[in-house]
Amino acid sequence: MHDTPSPLRVDDGVLHILDQTHLPFSEQEVRIDTAAQAAHTIASMQVRGAPLIGAIGAFGLALALREAADDAALDAAVRMLGATRPTAVNLAWALDRVAASVRPCPPPERAHRAWQEALAICHEDRAANHAIGSHVLGLVRALPASGRIRLMTHCNAGWLATTGWGTALSGIYLAHRAGLDVHVWVSETRPRNQGLLTAWELERAGVPHTVIADNAAAQLMYEGAVDAVVIGADRIAANGDTANKVGSCLKAFAARAHGIPFWVAAPWSTIDLGCADGAAIPIEQRDGDEVRVVRGMTGDARLLDAQRAVHNPAFDITPATLISAIVTESGVIDCQAGQTPRSDGRGPNSAEPIHRS
Amino acid sequence: MHDTPSPLRVDDGVLHILDQTHLPFSEQEVRIDTAAQAAHTIASMQVRGAPLIGAIGAFGLALALREAADDAALDAAVRMLGATRPTAVNLAWALDRVAASVRPCPPPERAHRAWQEALAICHEDRAANHAIGSHVLGLVRALPASGRIRLMTHCNAGWLATTGWGTALSGIYLAHRAGLDVHVWVSETRPRNQGLLTAWELERAGVPHTVIADNAAAQLMYEGAVDAVVIGADRIAANGDTANKVGSCLKAFAARAHGIPFWVAAPWSTIDLGCADGAAIPIEQRDGDEVRVVRGMTGDARLLDAQRAVHNPAFDITPATLISAIVTESGVIDCQAGQTPRSDGRGPNSAEPIHRS
Repeated sequence: MHDTPSPLRVDDGVLHILDQTHLPFSEQEVRIDTAAQAAHTIASMQVRGAPLIGAIGAFGLALALREAADDAALDAAVRMLGATRPTAVNLAWALDRVAASVRPCPPPERAHRAWQEALAICHEDRAANHAIGSHVLGLVRALPASGRIRLMTHCNAGWLATTGWGTALSGIYLAHRAGLDVHVWVSETRPRNQGLLTAWELERAGVPHTVIADNAAAQLMYEGAVDAVVIGADRIAANGDTANKVGSCLKAFAARAHGIPFWVAAPWSTIDLGCADGAAIPIEQRDGDEVRVVRGMTGDARLLDAQRAVHNPAFDITPATLISAIVTESGVIDCQAGQTPRSDGRGPNSAEPIHRS
Repeated sequence: MHDTPSPLRVDDGVLHILDQTHLPFSEQEVRIDTAAQAAHTIASMQVRGAPLIGAIGAFGLALALREAADDAALDAAVRMLGATRPTAVNLAWALDRVAASVRPCPPPERAHRAWQEALAICHEDRAANHAIGSHVLGLVRALPASGRIRLMTHCNAGWLATTGWGTALSGIYLAHRAGLDVHVWVSETRPRNQGLLTAWELERAGVPHTVIADNAAAQLMYEGAVDAVVIGADRIAANGDTANKVGSCLKAFAARAHGIPFWVAAPWSTIDLGCADGAAIPIEQRDGDEVRVVRGMTGDARLLDAQRAVHNPAFDITPATLISAIVTESGVIDCQAGQTPRSDGRGPNSAEPIHRS
């Protein structure tokens, strides 16, 4: 279960992260010594992915407590780190967990306690992701596909987005290791191109894959080239509505129309029972320059005029009605079961048998 | 009706085109003296857009006939020019029309006759597009939107894609000139970013607009920020299934789910009664390097390893069931009418009153 790469490395109480803004073109490690540095790596997307930013937030809180550990400093550090990115609930979850664990301790012991809690979060995250993968593998095995199994994903929900294994990709890794003939359609995921991180991960693991423009997803489904879609999540509301990287919902609509299963894979820490539905989830708006940097038609990179109006939501909401199953470490939640009960246990417009935990 | 810019200029029997591979960053004209040059401008996308490549194909055939004008040369030139791009039917339509018009003429007169026919195609295209725009304007006026009218488009179906006015954008220009408060969501349209051509056109015309990543379309609809979607077409099958720039269909699924009208605007020459449905339309596969040129997460342009497997369909098929209306120069075809007749004349899941010509 520990046979997974990780985007973070902890040696002798020192945290290093793999700088994802340079991937897939070069591998550069960054050492993180302060809470401010941890916050910067999250805001700048040197680390990204809901479970990973939760873990880095936890380490960041421990680093803050090395500088000052009274209650006021603790609260200030939680606020500072929590403000870096608003949508993924794992960040708030991890900060709350670490804060709760250290509050009973006297201030001089808090930094050490927080560091231990951050390590525990990492350990539990890897275990949860491995369990998620085993449940996704069950869904993959139950697909009616004959021959090669063609899966589609969006953004990066691999080991880079977590502390190991990944969420959406965990099951793909386990399927590949189990000898299943899987192939992955990797959507590039404009504007930040996290699909290239997925392609880089899959190449390292030897998993066959093909990169596509995000726009190509529906045509592949139309041509019958997709057996299932699996994505991660940044926040799941109480009713199952799911915030994930912008563009996820477009794939969900197309998958539904074509009767293709659409799976969301995420740990329980991504579920926010405090949000009744997707409308209550805050959607991060990012810098317009992410959109303004484009390739020209001749292939060179160009920056559009800064006056050019752009709109850049980082996430979108996929309504629960479009989701076939939410897969957590505890098992598979059948999102269609309550909507149109069928005697055969399959969801409406859903080609997969639903496995309950 | 003639108050429109055009991507081509004909002076004293000489054709010049605006090289769209350099837009929106610089305006460069290219002189076309031979059929081979005309073919190259189409294949390289220096000119693009279904109506425009039809017109350039027509001029290319006239140029070919200046070199050799016997029947064998005529047939060879039609084949050579027709092979440049497979999906847009307007190219084959224009070549067939010019060939039919010159075949009765003695070879020495054919080049001149072909040139006149190409000019007629341009003239008729501009008139058709202006008529399409007036019909789209009628749909826009009938929207239930209060205040600003928020339209979404995909790719470029403006004057750059035609010989003037555009198809999808023609109605937007007419609405803006009529004093309606329209705003356009412009999808960048990876991998070739033709959305930037649309933004450039709209800026020149003073039409308010905002550029988005293609992935953002569903979230904008979820937030209630889209009143209608209007796109062009490269080929429309007999049943209404529509081939247009890849990514169109994703917007159609999302629009349908949100009850947002989805209009296809195209001249009759885009309708191919020889294709029973979308499955019969050939989908052009383009060079993978269009996808491999990406921006890195740090904003620089990078070329992915040439060994990186990519898949790059240039078009997708939007099923007729998702289209609210097809707007041609003759009027508005209600695509929903035959499916679920309603006494009030509105299509299912369609918010707009349908106007019949």
